[in-house]
Amino acid sequence: MPTTIKAYGAEFSDAPLKELEIKRRELNPKDVKIKIEYCGVCHSDIHTVRNDWGGSKYPVVPCHEIIGTVEAIGDDVKDFKVGQTVGVGCMVDSCRTCPSCQDDLEQYCEQGSVGTYNGNDKHLGGHTFGGYSQQIVVDEHFVLNIPENLDIKATAPLLCAGITTWSPLSHWNVKRGDKVGVVGLGGLGHMGIKFANALGAHVVMITRSKDKAQDAKDLGAHEVLISTDDKQMQEHANSFDFLLNTIPVKHDMNPYLGLLKRDKTMVLVGAIEPLEPLHGASLILNRKRVAGSLIGGIKETQEMLDFCGKHNITCDVEMINIQNINEAYDRVTSSDVKYRFVIDMESLK
Amino acid sequence: MPTTIKAYGAEFSDAPLKELEIKRRELNPKDVKIKIEYCGVCHSDIHTVRNDWGGSKYPVVPCHEIIGTVEAIGDDVKDFKVGQTVGVGCMVDSCRTCPSCQDDLEQYCEQGSVGTYNGNDKHLGGHTFGGYSQQIVVDEHFVLNIPENLDIKATAPLLCAGITTWSPLSHWNVKRGDKVGVVGLGGLGHMGIKFANALGAHVVMITRSKDKAQDAKDLGAHEVLISTDDKQMQEHANSFDFLLNTIPVKHDMNPYLGLLKRDKTMVLVGAIEPLEPLHGASLILNRKRVAGSLIGGIKETQEMLDFCGKHNITCDVEMINIQNINEAYDRVTSSDVKYRFVIDMESLK
Repeated sequence: MPTTIKAYGAEFSDAPLKELEIKRRELNPKDVKIKIEYCGVCHSDIHTVRNDWGGSKYPVVPCHEIIGTVEAIGDDVKDFKVGQTVGVGCMVDSCRTCPSCQDDLEQYCEQGSVGTYNGNDKHLGGHTFGGYSQQIVVDEHFVLNIPENLDIKATAPLLCAGITTWSPLSHWNVKRGDKVGVVGLGGLGHMGIKFANALGAHVVMITRSKDKAQDAKDLGAHEVLISTDDKQMQEHANSFDFLLNTIPVKHDMNPYLGLLKRDKTMVLVGAIEPLEPLHGASLILNRKRVAGSLIGGIKETQEMLDFCGKHNITCDVEMINIQNINEAYDRVTSSDVKYRFVIDMESLK
Repeated sequence: MPTTIKAYGAEFSDAPLKELEIKRRELNPKDVKIKIEYCGVCHSDIHTVRNDWGGSKYPVVPCHEIIGTVEAIGDDVKDFKVGQTVGVGCMVDSCRTCPSCQDDLEQYCEQGSVGTYNGNDKHLGGHTFGGYSQQIVVDEHFVLNIPENLDIKATAPLLCAGITTWSPLSHWNVKRGDKVGVVGLGGLGHMGIKFANALGAHVVMITRSKDKAQDAKDLGAHEVLISTDDKQMQEHANSFDFLLNTIPVKHDMNPYLGLLKRDKTMVLVGAIEPLEPLHGASLILNRKRVAGSLIGGIKETQEMLDFCGKHNITCDVEMINIQNINEAYDRVTSSDVKYRFVIDMESLK
């Protein structure tokens, strides 16, 4: 029978997060039971708690950037052992049989992947609960190995902000010598800069805010392009090999498309909402492309983590206790974080 | 010195087309002098005559779908001979040295290709004049060979409507077995169907109008999908390998993007104007892409013509005399043509 554990969630959209007792499934043969140690705070946690996108199921126990220690493993688990540091990202299940799953792209599962929270729980019924909790039980396919050399509390946001920016950079084959623009400097953008830099690209931070220039350079940007400066934008016209657009809200894509070389692509990873009108000529006149990209598959998430281990890449984080989560949400909403809050889950006890 | 010849143009945006005397350049060593026999009527001719896009230079002598016979050649012309049937499309010059020109993509010339009409004439100064004329003189690089087996009057629109649809189908490698949707059935769409069919694809005509279903099938569509029928659209969701979007005006791309498989592309070739708001999720949720494509390079235009010769493909045309051009413009504007008017230029004399 499922055991009851302590978690931290929201019962209604307008209720603050508070302590809850929730059920956790017992170990199946392929399951890994993880003691949760660190939780990254993603903007989508806030959207879900506040039901901004509609469809939230309460109580919401957020967090899909989970770092912990393996406490127990099922009889058939092969790739993990007790005591190991592991991660769980945005998904805990998928059909495993559709073409997307077969291509290691579980995030595009044709049956719909199961979100780490607010997904449909196939084991206990109801919906899934995320990382603001003492423990989580996950099929080993969806558990990630965290390289030992990294500062583990700063690895939590790799599981969402990291893979969301890594996946398009990897899929579109960003490489040494490419001129890559990262549009928007937040939780996603700061990882985009680090990855593009480590991949050998010439990285240009593209932002409306001059105040972010020094930070962008400290993170690894080689240049900063102020998007509200028409002269600068004109100087960079038709010169980029790739644009990673991390802007999380509605915006005008046309000025950014003017920066791309012929046949090159801008990938949206942030704005899951209607955008300002795209001008057909922005694409037609130099055979340009706009694409979207959603987090990443489990295989490429592990590849990203291994790359981080090799290049000693982690996120820039600000540590908080779980009791300060509502204040942190307000600060995320007003872009007042560099660049990701991480909860020390020791504070839940 | 330039000679004066008879042409047919508009002197002001609100003036009807009328007879004009204009100058033609004499033969340079690489020039081909062409007696014009047939002129396709493209919607962009009308936009230019009526200054819909702004920037029209008067008098406008329209037409960039020109078929004629070589009357004379310069001393260094190697690829054409007097008496041969040739074509001239949307461009008569480009810088020939930039990366796009070096890649045989003169339409994306970084200096700007020279349009067959209303472009900047490097030889005579002023602006270029198109096909509503007795003759045209063009550098041989921009002259196309017309396969002898084709009905030549029905080849004129291949030079714009043909290459505009061929280029993306070829560039995105549409092949046997692909499920290809052609959105919009007009001058462009009818060629998209013919080409996609000849390339071996399973062709689906996507249209709002049930009235076009039989015509689409006659042209080579294997299925017709009525885009206003939600049930049909749902049945075809996430099933297309490629979408060729020929809609010439502002529209909502989101329903069409829902038809694409993961990682597949919709290419815009018609709507050079701001579109309805694109929803970020339409791209992000299955890593889909929107791209644009502009006519095609000279090399691929010749490849398209050779393909047409091999597969006996021409356009469906309605022949008119030059004196009926204004009536034809009104009919094009109200989509009352199947599928392209072609002017018999014998009527100019």
